[in-house]
Amino acid sequence: MKQFRWLIIVVFVAACARKKGTVVFQSDFGVKDGAVSAMKGVAMETSPNLHLYDLTHEIPSYNIWEAAYRLQQTAPYWPKGTVFVSVVDPGVGTSRRSVVMLSKSGHYFVTPDNGTLTLVAESLGIEAVREIDEAVNRRKQSLQSYTFHGRDVYAYTAARLAAGVISFKEVGKKLPDSVVRIPYQHAILQGDSITGTIPVLDIQYGNIWTNIPDSMVRALSVTPGQTLHIQILKSGIPVFNGSMPFVHTFGDVPEGRPLAYVNSLMNFSIAYNMGNFADSFHIKAGPEYKVVIRLNHDLKDFKD
Amino acid sequence: MKQFRWLIIVVFVAACARKKGTVVFQSDFGVKDGAVSAMKGVAMETSPNLHLYDLTHEIPSYNIWEAAYRLQQTAPYWPKGTVFVSVVDPGVGTSRRSVVMLSKSGHYFVTPDNGTLTLVAESLGIEAVREIDEAVNRRKQSLQSYTFHGRDVYAYTAARLAAGVISFKEVGKKLPDSVVRIPYQHAILQGDSITGTIPVLDIQYGNIWTNIPDSMVRALSVTPGQTLHIQILKSGIPVFNGSMPFVHTFGDVPEGRPLAYVNSLMNFSIAYNMGNFADSFHIKAGPEYKVVIRLNHDLKDFKD
Amino acid sequence: MKQFRWLIIVVFVAACARKKGTVVFQSDFGVKDGAVSAMKGVAMETSPNLHLYDLTHEIPSYNIWEAAYRLQQTAPYWPKGTVFVSVVDPGVGTSRRSVVMLSKSGHYFVTPDNGTLTLVAESLGIEAVREIDEAVNRRKQSLQSYTFHGRDVYAYTAARLAAGVISFKEVGKKLPDSVVRIPYQHAILQGDSITGTIPVLDIQYGNIWTNIPDSMVRALSVTPGQTLHIQILKSGIPVFNGSMPFVHTFGDVPEGRPLAYVNSLMNFSIAYNMGNFADSFHIKAGPEYKVVIRLNHDLKDFKD
Repeated sequence: MKQFRWLIIVVFVAACARKKGTVVFQSDFGVKDGAVSAMKGVAMETSPNLHLYDLTHEIPSYNIWEAAYRLQQTAPYWPKGTVFVSVVDPGVGTSRRSVVMLSKSGHYFVTPDNGTLTLVAESLGIEAVREIDEAVNRRKQSLQSYTFHGRDVYAYTAARLAAGVISFKEVGKKLPDSVVRIPYQHAILQGDSITGTIPVLDIQYGNIWTNIPDSMVRALSVTPGQTLHIQILKSGIPVFNGSMPFVHTFGDVPEGRPLAYVNSLMNFSIAYNMGNFADSFHIKAGPEYKVVIRLNHDLKDFKD
Repeated sequence: MKQFRWLIIVVFVAACARKKGTVVFQSDFGVKDGAVSAMKGVAMETSPNLHLYDLTHEIPSYNIWEAAYRLQQTAPYWPKGTVFVSVVDPGVGTSRRSVVMLSKSGHYFVTPDNGTLTLVAESLGIEAVREIDEAVNRRKQSLQSYTFHGRDVYAYTAARLAAGVISFKEVGKKLPDSVVRIPYQHAILQGDSITGTIPVLDIQYGNIWTNIPDSMVRALSVTPGQTLHIQILKSGIPVFNGSMPFVHTFGDVPEGRPLAYVNSLMNFSIAYNMGNFADSFHIKAGPEYKVVIRLNHDLKDFKD
Repeated sequence: MKQFRWLIIVVFVAACARKKGTVVFQSDFGVKDGAVSAMKGVAMETSPNLHLYDLTHEIPSYNIWEAAYRLQQTAPYWPKGTVFVSVVDPGVGTSRRSVVMLSKSGHYFVTPDNGTLTLVAESLGIEAVREIDEAVNRRKQSLQSYTFHGRDVYAYTAARLAAGVISFKEVGKKLPDSVVRIPYQHAILQGDSITGTIPVLDIQYGNIWTNIPDSMVRALSVTPGQTLHIQILKSGIPVFNGSMPFVHTFGDVPEGRPLAYVNSLMNFSIAYNMGNFADSFHIKAGPEYKVVIRLNHDLKDFKD
């Protein structure tokens, strides 16, 4: 009888202790149709205990660079063990590999290896990369369908990994510790100026977010309140040329005035207080942009 | 003392074993206001253990057909027992019935019976239909309000059903095994051509998704790589007339070229690789569209 | 040995009994970038047992009034103990206080105290207000960043409060029972007319939602079926002047016809059946609008 009681308790403990993993979805699918919901359904079918969240599904169609940027922007804030699925996949059906990357920070990324991992590989570090073995890690009943890897391979594999149904090892064979990387210009400090690019806009407000780290700005001996001269070029042609104060916060300048500041990612940024800087100068994001920061003691290269 | 210990364990088991049902919400409410959040609040008030997810809230206003399509597109991927709430309800306050349909696949659908169930009734089968008895299955304090059935009846009933507070039987009286159906053209194979309609677009990419199943295309002896001739008519007037290869995947044709393929729902589809086919020819979805597929050995009816 | 068994059970009970709080997020961030996801990541890092939901992230940029309205619209439907985070914060970095308000209804609101609490303070009542002590209730590693309070202070504090990591007391020092309030025109019944404003539109459908309660309409002895005369003014200039029936539901008038009704919040509202009233008359929401309702027995002030 006592054995029986203990059996009940053990079964119960096992049931309650089921792993409650977290899967975070990103795609360029939008949320007007059922694609995102189908991916989540497949995940819930795997394990009803999973927590399913969205990063964004509004990545512009086929924009791998922005997918890479959004992962880098948010992954560090999620707990170790979180499994990210990113499906921006213009090469679906071609020979691009499907992989799971484990970062040194302990996050998993399930995605086509098409450049999406460029920035997290760099900022979080690669612990290991495995190729998804679709012979086992693919939804049953999906063999005749050639196009929805997001649901049948990526969401399916991510959910099983997050729920502990498969281990990282069981994803598939280990690959070398590298991923496909999109080349882009890194921030550099040279003499009295810093050059960088605009990886992404703070799209809701039209703020310019550069890839120039706060530390590099401080290395130029810039202090809050100082005026900076800033030039933004698109494919070599200036699209903005002007000066603005480097401040702690938007409220430090009057409404409608430009400011330079450090954003929540600790990168150098440019904005109008209560306005849209990017729209005002028709600036978008991408590797064709160059941002040059200079202390205002030498104005000869700039016109206001 | 032992009895006491067992009492604790039993209470605890009961507490932990509370049903963790899943409710999936669909509507034409959008997510700019608080309507969706109010529905979810009502559900969480019923049981804090529920999992609440969205199918989409971007169904075009009053578009019952699209609501029907989105349910059919995604429900099969969710686990048995999932409760769907769909609130696209131009007839709110009129005499349309509020029902819960249990499909043969084990999914529940809570909705006004206004055509929303047309496609899931057909594809998943009707196990039983019950009319929601609003005398009991309606939020208290909501009797004076005439308009927000989505929150006070549908979300409330769905959450209580998913959480096990009420059984399917307790929804209300059993109805005959039928639902209101919107008439539409089914796919037919006739001689050397297949005719169907465009139930919905793959809106994010502008791909044309027909209701012609893969099996019917294969019955026409079409094999990957073959060229097909395709005509699309709107209310009888041709809006597209051309040929394209039938391929496995987008990557099989150059960028900007048209292709025919089988989509993730195993239906015949038409697209531009890296382009927007629907926008290019001003094609939308709906019963006024007709798609005719023909093998390219007979070109006399078509001009490129 | 028995002690040991009991130890296991106690540990297990404690593990299972972890508080599963609910956090509901609202902002003007949109969902195109990673800001919302970063907030949720921070919350999940605090406790993997939290339920995280969205009210909306589509509040127009810096529109504190609409943020206030959305909270009032939905909070009452969520269970007691739900923690709301609202981040519409044009004054980020200035001296506006960060607070947690506990309403008499038992809901928590974590937000900059900039007017966002105007309406919930009024309708739900203030039980207590505490200022967030950022010395303790702020994400570690975030001290050098000045701008993303949504993630580092508000989401962080809300998650810890919802998960029971901190008590309400531990939020910070108690403030007087008041919050910053945006002045606005209340509904008044005077003689045979009622005057109010348009706090918000039912944006998806273009319906006009006033702040005039159902009870005030009944106090004017209006009964369903009666015709009302309605004037809408913007900054004193009439933008609509006409009569329409006061009905239970949209289906009570033909398609394309105007109607007055009581919405799901029990407030007087105006709409076209199957049409967009607000767009038709270029009406938006805000304190510059005035709505005047009069029974139709006196038409001399109005022209159709």
